[in-house]
Amino acid sequence: MDRIGLTHRHYVRVIYAQTDRMNAVYYTRYYEYFESARSALLRSVGVPYADMESAGYLLPVVESHCRYHRAATFEDILIIETFIGELPKVKLRLDYTVLRAGETDPIATGYTVHSFVDAKFKPVRAPRQFIDALRSHAGETIDEEPPPL
Amino acid sequence: MDRIGLTHRHYVRVIYAQTDRMNAVYYTRYYEYFESARSALLRSVGVPYADMESAGYLLPVVESHCRYHRAATFEDILIIETFIGELPKVKLRLDYTVLRAGETDPIATGYTVHSFVDAKFKPVRAPRQFIDALRSHAGETIDEEPPPL
Amino acid sequence: MDRIGLTHRHYVRVIYAQTDRMNAVYYTRYYEYFESARSALLRSVGVPYADMESAGYLLPVVESHCRYHRAATFEDILIIETFIGELPKVKLRLDYTVLRAGETDPIATGYTVHSFVDAKFKPVRAPRQFIDALRSHAGETIDEEPPPL
Amino acid sequence: MDRIGLTHRHYVRVIYAQTDRMNAVYYTRYYEYFESARSALLRSVGVPYADMESAGYLLPVVESHCRYHRAATFEDILIIETFIGELPKVKLRLDYTVLRAGETDPIATGYTVHSFVDAKFKPVRAPRQFIDALRSHAGETIDEEPPPL
Repeated sequence: MDRIGLTHRHYVRVIYAQTDRMNAVYYTRYYEYFESARSALLRSVGVPYADMESAGYLLPVVESHCRYHRAATFEDILIIETFIGELPKVKLRLDYTVLRAGETDPIATGYTVHSFVDAKFKPVRAPRQFIDALRSHAGETIDEEPPPL
Repeated sequence: MDRIGLTHRHYVRVIYAQTDRMNAVYYTRYYEYFESARSALLRSVGVPYADMESAGYLLPVVESHCRYHRAATFEDILIIETFIGELPKVKLRLDYTVLRAGETDPIATGYTVHSFVDAKFKPVRAPRQFIDALRSHAGETIDEEPPPL
Repeated sequence: MDRIGLTHRHYVRVIYAQTDRMNAVYYTRYYEYFESARSALLRSVGVPYADMESAGYLLPVVESHCRYHRAATFEDILIIETFIGELPKVKLRLDYTVLRAGETDPIATGYTVHSFVDAKFKPVRAPRQFIDALRSHAGETIDEEPPPL
Repeated sequence: MDRIGLTHRHYVRVIYAQTDRMNAVYYTRYYEYFESARSALLRSVGVPYADMESAGYLLPVVESHCRYHRAATFEDILIIETFIGELPKVKLRLDYTVLRAGETDPIATGYTVHSFVDAKFKPVRAPRQFIDALRSHAGETIDEEPPPL
């Protein structure tokens, strides 16, 4: 195993569309926040996911999990902390913690696992450029500019 | 203009995901119901949209409109009546009326306009098979089996 | 523990909205199918979730998980098999298997865990009526009418 | 009529969830961008929509419309220009233009109309504080900080 310990902080503002009649963010929407956060992480280390697809690599989700500790609601600013613990070989795991701005107890925690495949969905090893990009940011915490409050 | 006057009735059950914190179906979701209804109409006349795409025809939405008269909510059974008034040449217009089961005043009314394009998004005329399929059902009202109440 | 072993089969048709540019159902949409399936199960045993909410009980999701084995795509008919293994005390767990109609290898498998809370989100025990409704269907397989093919 | 001519620029990044198998942003998602943009506008003039709801005012959508001129896709940065031409009496109309960053031809154009209602959905006049907030920004163009490129 090859430790990397890379953390990234992404911000989203909850929109009305994402609330349900319980006045809470509907449970599937956290997985959209996770996607938004991991794409932001990949852009921030120089390997945008769109570029990976152009180069013939896909990263479909093979597993997803989330625990919901407390409710978020309309107009909340949420911080999505994404953590990559290890360099991927054929699979990539990302862990997510969702916090409301200004709080320390998480709203939700979860993870996704992705496998590297080619355009025909055949499993492949993570591309060298991807590995190098992650490795060059090992141990870092990359913080996006928060949105206007 | 070539009148056709084809009506189709499709049924959806409102799920929790589609409600918002106003306890009403969120306004974008009606457009998903419209999509579900028009795909059902195309299947019912023998030209499933998936088959059209396989044959190289795309039907992207070029315009959409909806008026929201009253709110629908969780577990409501909605009837989506889709109406095609005229045979398409390069554009297809569908009109939608959304009713709650057992009611006569509409919840919402709207329309979508689609253009026929090829795989490179170049405008093309509606394929002959598509026109013939619609024409063979001119004046009909096609009613799906309603879901269990 | 109180075994119950209740299975329910629900059907959904994949709409275009649910596909992504990988031509696969986007990973969050399976959780919407799960919701649709569990609401159908509750209706089929006589305790619609909308009625539970009217009676002051909420069942927020506290955990969700899904494994994606193969891709589903536009117009596929998916069978969502929901399984409740045990009567809930303060939490309810449902397991889901997603199959494409006519196939035996699952597309996806997952589960959700829900806690019973009152209108103020205070944990409560599962209501008696709910327990009785599930118990009266112990060991059954409840099959919805499949949609028209 | 009371002219106001207020423009606001909001930025969104297209996520994978919003694309469909045509590799284009699915047509309903533009209405989510519109919502995101109008909530940002209201925050920027000092009357966040969440606060209006807390004060007992709801602004349900009564009409929505969109024309789709060209496709947007994954990772595009979109600029949503929202324009309020007139002070609302019992209805508020917002016009939207969606541009891809760096381009001048719109991707999409649309509008939404909202009615002011109280918590029982009874129509009411727009609250004084809301009118004053808009009026104090008449003729302005309010530009959000664009996201990191």
